[in-house]
Amino acid sequence: MPQDFTEKKIQSKLVYQGRLLRVEEDVVLLPDGNESRREYVRHPGASMIIPLFDDDTVLLERQYRYPVGKHLIEFPAGKLDSKESPLEAAQRELLEETGYVADSWMELGSFLLAVGYSDERIYCFLARDLKYRKPNLDQGEFLETIRVPKQELFDWIENGTLEDSKTIIGASWLKSKI
Amino acid sequence: MPQDFTEKKIQSKLVYQGRLLRVEEDVVLLPDGNESRREYVRHPGASMIIPLFDDDTVLLERQYRYPVGKHLIEFPAGKLDSKESPLEAAQRELLEETGYVADSWMELGSFLLAVGYSDERIYCFLARDLKYRKPNLDQGEFLETIRVPKQELFDWIENGTLEDSKTIIGASWLKSKI
Repeated sequence: MPQDFTEKKIQSKLVYQGRLLRVEEDVVLLPDGNESRREYVRHPGASMIIPLFDDDTVLLERQYRYPVGKHLIEFPAGKLDSKESPLEAAQRELLEETGYVADSWMELGSFLLAVGYSDERIYCFLARDLKYRKPNLDQGEFLETIRVPKQELFDWIENGTLEDSKTIIGASWLKSKI
Repeated sequence: MPQDFTEKKIQSKLVYQGRLLRVEEDVVLLPDGNESRREYVRHPGASMIIPLFDDDTVLLERQYRYPVGKHLIEFPAGKLDSKESPLEAAQRELLEETGYVADSWMELGSFLLAVGYSDERIYCFLARDLKYRKPNLDQGEFLETIRVPKQELFDWIENGTLEDSKTIIGASWLKSKI
């Protein structure tokens, strides 16, 4: 019988509301009756897309990630807008960031990104039957796309070239589930 | 020739300093000469441990994760203390949380957890030749350990039972690198 370690909210305080981040600080009741504090980011969730072409190449993005101070190669991804489903967000982000639309969509699963301090869930979609339209990047968003054989992607994961957690998970699901 | 999308810091402001989280809000210079804002969590980094026994079972933890409101099964992990190396943190956390020490340690790699809004890097270690001493949990930390065959861990990843991103990556590296 698994133990119940549930922590109950006593009070919640919004301590930071930026344009992107919302941080809350809650007082919680611990299983032993004591109180503690929990600090965490509230996130609307995100969708990640694995664009797979008929020739077994995949589309990746290369962009500068300010928090870690370097350029990273990642699968396309973006936050859910209000009232948008994960699939709708995936379709919108793929078109906006890469210029591609896809006729075939398959959800591979979802995962929780940073459970210590965020409620973000990322939904992972495989996109096939891709057709090029035209990208429409958000203002202040700079990226280039890279198309590589999926075996090269797997090599990049293996040798540590790709460091982004969601992209590592996406590649591992592409390998194990497709 | 890859493009340079580097964003340069113009100014930085500490907008929240909690017990766990430190949030900064920077004004940055974009590649096109415009300015934008970047909000992100500063994190000291963390170590994750994959404790593997001689009989091919692994040790996991089950604990309540307040930000996502549920119990999760994860590999042991914890933040680096100041001046502590990733390996030292891994050894300390394994003992504190599970009561085990290990004679054999191998670094499997590292990854960046949430590049959109955090600089956290997680270092992943395989721990073998395990011996039980006695756990020493931090105050306010409640968890139980679970020991399962590694094949069961792989099944749990496959069927979505395990949702924590670092644990998914650790399991995939255990499968591909060991």
